[in-house]
Amino acid sequence: MKAEIIAVGSELLTPDRIDTNSLFLTAQLNRLGIEVVRKSIVGDEPNNLQREFRAALELADVIIVSGGLGPTEDDLTREALAAVLQRPLVQDDEILKDIEEKFQRFGRVMPQINTKQALVPVGAIVLPNSRGTAPGLWVENGTKIVVLLPGPPSELEPMFIEKVIPRLEMRVTGARLNQRALRVTGMGESAVDQAIAPIYKGYRDVQTTLLHFPGEIHVYLRLWSPDQAAAEKRLDEMVERMRLALGESLFTTKGEDMELVVARELTWHGATIAVAESCTGGLLAERLSRQPGSSSHFLGGVVSYANELKSGWLDVTKELIDTKGAVSAEAAKAMAEGVRRRSGATLGLAVTGIAGPTGGTPEKPVGTVHIALADSEGVQEKMFRFPGDRGRIRGQAAVAAMDMVRRYYLHHPGRKAQ
Amino acid sequence: MKAEIIAVGSELLTPDRIDTNSLFLTAQLNRLGIEVVRKSIVGDEPNNLQREFRAALELADVIIVSGGLGPTEDDLTREALAAVLQRPLVQDDEILKDIEEKFQRFGRVMPQINTKQALVPVGAIVLPNSRGTAPGLWVENGTKIVVLLPGPPSELEPMFIEKVIPRLEMRVTGARLNQRALRVTGMGESAVDQAIAPIYKGYRDVQTTLLHFPGEIHVYLRLWSPDQAAAEKRLDEMVERMRLALGESLFTTKGEDMELVVARELTWHGATIAVAESCTGGLLAERLSRQPGSSSHFLGGVVSYANELKSGWLDVTKELIDTKGAVSAEAAKAMAEGVRRRSGATLGLAVTGIAGPTGGTPEKPVGTVHIALADSEGVQEKMFRFPGDRGRIRGQAAVAAMDMVRRYYLHHPGRKAQ
Repeated sequence: MKAEIIAVGSELLTPDRIDTNSLFLTAQLNRLGIEVVRKSIVGDEPNNLQREFRAALELADVIIVSGGLGPTEDDLTREALAAVLQRPLVQDDEILKDIEEKFQRFGRVMPQINTKQALVPVGAIVLPNSRGTAPGLWVENGTKIVVLLPGPPSELEPMFIEKVIPRLEMRVTGARLNQRALRVTGMGESAVDQAIAPIYKGYRDVQTTLLHFPGEIHVYLRLWSPDQAAAEKRLDEMVERMRLALGESLFTTKGEDMELVVARELTWHGATIAVAESCTGGLLAERLSRQPGSSSHFLGGVVSYANELKSGWLDVTKELIDTKGAVSAEAAKAMAEGVRRRSGATLGLAVTGIAGPTGGTPEKPVGTVHIALADSEGVQEKMFRFPGDRGRIRGQAAVAAMDMVRRYYLHHPGRKAQ
Repeated sequence: MKAEIIAVGSELLTPDRIDTNSLFLTAQLNRLGIEVVRKSIVGDEPNNLQREFRAALELADVIIVSGGLGPTEDDLTREALAAVLQRPLVQDDEILKDIEEKFQRFGRVMPQINTKQALVPVGAIVLPNSRGTAPGLWVENGTKIVVLLPGPPSELEPMFIEKVIPRLEMRVTGARLNQRALRVTGMGESAVDQAIAPIYKGYRDVQTTLLHFPGEIHVYLRLWSPDQAAAEKRLDEMVERMRLALGESLFTTKGEDMELVVARELTWHGATIAVAESCTGGLLAERLSRQPGSSSHFLGGVVSYANELKSGWLDVTKELIDTKGAVSAEAAKAMAEGVRRRSGATLGLAVTGIAGPTGGTPEKPVGTVHIALADSEGVQEKMFRFPGDRGRIRGQAAVAAMDMVRRYYLHHPGRKAQ
């Protein structure tokens, strides 16, 4: 089965907005074994919409349309589809009642304009919207399926998962997608490619894609196959070979965020952590607290942007900063030890560096970052030179800091909290 | 003039990749007064490519195509366009020489496969590529213009700016885009719409779009006009009326980030700030330190995720937390005063709340957030109930906290640092 995804909305044709619903929809469709052969973005204009629907009905078996289901005169998706399929629009009394009730619940009377949202092409199946007023529609035309969904991701995503996938699953036959998502840190994109190219070149049936993010390279392996067991086995074998080639730099094969990997290690070891950061400005703490439940192992930290705070909150002496500099191995170590001591955490993690664009010197250029990790027995430190702009340097530093914790537990697998 | 943008590449139809070239291209085209009426993404498949070109030639005056110009058999953009325009492909000796030289420069012999990149439809103008091997092409067909560009942004962007814009400029007549980007905080999307709908309904020529982000509503006003002075005047008038309708909740008419607005106020008043945060986990500090140069007014802060740190670093007594709770007006005030005193900053800003998904109670449900701001004379506090998931609650809390600083200076315009 082949699918086309159409995003409707003039705002999606501006330089400020991009259609991201199609990424979610593609992932979901692929998992069902449905390939996306085309995506398009059209404005709220009746002729263009109709032309788009006609072209899609020629090309694809399943057409997923998002947006243009609202109550205003700009919302024309329903009308355009009805025109193309030559089906009259009729009022669905249940939808109307449902919308009226939603307004009543907020103590308001439904504006006349919203009655439009109760119009459906004859023969369409209504997909109720639990998060908004616009219902979705499932319309079959011969062997073709057209699904209209509301544009906001918070409405589209649950509707697709709850109402559309079960209907599509009944239709699907044949190949399904099997995949792995490897993530690597501490290596550049070309180094990763050099390490794994000899492997993936031997698996021509597996689609291998490398993408780079601040501090991380993601490697996606995708294999379409009607035989899931064989495909899974083949991917497992490929992943094991890549694991050998990448070594410790590979930190997940399941697309997990670094903070999740670190949280698991800390929880497993019954350990807690506190952070002291300057150039990352709170980003490291924000990453470590992003996961629900992170308060069980993340105690907090200090953002010591001003040097005075490094002494007041972290006991880093003015003398040390004056002699070694705020961006130095010594300062990083003192910050890590200070935050560990002052917080009572098992581990103290510190980052100090120059995120730029100003503040660099020939000896310490922009991108110079020191990261230190203290435990009850001592403190280790490492210096990095990160490329890129302020945002990228901060992102890479936060990942490298979390990675130091991950590698610490790789080398101290039995270490328990003190 | 109307444009269509086509992105070619099967990798752009996976869940991992999105076409972002079209954002750059749209911004550039709009600046020339060329409206984008459709975007599409197609795989490397000859029939689909040809169908796409035919549809685009019907709809648009300018068609910008990115990708599919490489040397491999998957790269079919040139061939598909030649077929649709019914023009033979001929070898361009200059391109061939240029590609051969590029390989020689790296000490390599040009593989036979690359000769394909020297094929051009008869009558096409070659756009040299200074950053890669694939040249671009400018093809005119009657009144229509088709531009083929290489896919990598590092090649596409300079080629578009240097080679395509000057050619397009010669063709363009008439309308240019004039725009405003308003941002509002502290009001929901429907409240903003209710306030400004009576205004924008009187400006039918101005395209008004509302978008919502955590804690912010963005309002874009876009007016295409051949008379720039008149358009600017009309937008200014519209913005002034919206300013009256939105009041203090409007924080920029130039699309500025909240942290930039706050940084400007702090710098203007010669003030510094330090933060104490629990539920936002570092996000507030990260936002305040995101701008280059923020170290001149942002001193740092404490992420007191664990209650013990609230006393150790912020002098919030255990008794206060035991009697009032860590999420309370009293705790927020004590944190703000504590961080101000301990950091020596002009202002102390504190956030404490329940980001969820767990930890809520009937009295303090998930989304309850207290924000406090302390200066030399006292401390103010406000309670919020934010909707949404953990990420959205954290985002809204960070924006609301920064907004408290902005409003503080609105009400104390003459206040100088103590």
